[in-house]
Amino acid sequence: MLNNQNRGRLISFEGVDGAGKSSHMARVKAHLESLGLTCVQTREPGGTPVGEAIRALVLHHDMDINTELLLMYAARRQHVAELIEPALSRGAWVITDRFEDSSFAYQSSAGGAVWEQCVALSKWALQGFEPDLTFLFDLPVEVSKARVQARGADSDKFEAKPDAYFEDVRAGFLKRAQLNPRRIRVINAQEPEERVGERVLAELDHFMTTHQVKAKA
Amino acid sequence: MLNNQNRGRLISFEGVDGAGKSSHMARVKAHLESLGLTCVQTREPGGTPVGEAIRALVLHHDMDINTELLLMYAARRQHVAELIEPALSRGAWVITDRFEDSSFAYQSSAGGAVWEQCVALSKWALQGFEPDLTFLFDLPVEVSKARVQARGADSDKFEAKPDAYFEDVRAGFLKRAQLNPRRIRVINAQEPEERVGERVLAELDHFMTTHQVKAKA
Repeated sequence: MLNNQNRGRLISFEGVDGAGKSSHMARVKAHLESLGLTCVQTREPGGTPVGEAIRALVLHHDMDINTELLLMYAARRQHVAELIEPALSRGAWVITDRFEDSSFAYQSSAGGAVWEQCVALSKWALQGFEPDLTFLFDLPVEVSKARVQARGADSDKFEAKPDAYFEDVRAGFLKRAQLNPRRIRVINAQEPEERVGERVLAELDHFMTTHQVKAKA
Repeated sequence: MLNNQNRGRLISFEGVDGAGKSSHMARVKAHLESLGLTCVQTREPGGTPVGEAIRALVLHHDMDINTELLLMYAARRQHVAELIEPALSRGAWVITDRFEDSSFAYQSSAGGAVWEQCVALSKWALQGFEPDLTFLFDLPVEVSKARVQARGADSDKFEAKPDAYFEDVRAGFLKRAQLNPRRIRVINAQEPEERVGERVLAELDHFMTTHQVKAKA
């Protein structure tokens, strides 16, 4: 995979709903653009017409967990092939609301798909492609639950799950962070939003310095 | 996999459109029922609500070929888990219009997905599960094309492909038959329908005899 100075970078934002991914993505996007970088914002499952159709299918149908995992990787493969890889190749930075750490957390750790099977499918579908940097917004289950309820949005099948499910989701994310310490930065999302935002931008600056990314402006 | 006398059998019908799969499936179903067997008829991609939604997605959207293969195996995994395996377990016979030989023919041989990658994904998704018997209706491309045109049905993205594509589809099916000589019976679908039907029932009777399947009536 070409990874020179001109190539963009992929940053994923992971964590349960209510952890503040959206507002921090907006902040990161604004920061990157202030540095003169082109920034593409996207999400998973989704990001492409085929991916969004798969998203609708997965969020509202119960199914075999390995069927669900195959659908997630179908959407992800299309996401990488159609949107992410072309954007990186033309030098844009891509920030995505979720990437494959979510499959390990939701479909494997909480959903019951075998972890090693998930690793194998990832290799099959993505051939080692992964984000350059990942922010994992970590939050105790009761806090994220209260935030989602306060938000009052329409719930999908995942949001309707019991607390034990979300404990497993959280554990899955933290296991991924432990296995990928160079890529994944765990952010304590319980702190005040302003402080979390400062922490994210500090980590981003550190990443850009160590990876010798030069701002254009 | 339990495969005793009480367990049903899975028979797949493969080949390009226009090869006469539908009419011969109806004939086989009637024959099995005349023997007192319960028979479930289904199709791929599809067979379940999730699978039918995937079918609509695949038939009418262009996408990366490995995305398409992942979607086909997502539909197939659900098909086996939700419909086929439970039916076989309760003793029903399942006849399906297409199964995974079609993925090797359409997505790999004609579509360009790597054959060995297709084998690997099959193992991941189905863990060795396969039909007990497969009828491959073989037909020269110009004949199937003329039959489909005469039928005048709505065309999907596959039917709109050029002749060279269907030559590759045919070659893919024949390669599968060569690799699976015990399971796959190649039927010359150019012969008159009545004669093809007799050949199919003769092969079915031979299968039932060699597999010691006893009729109930």
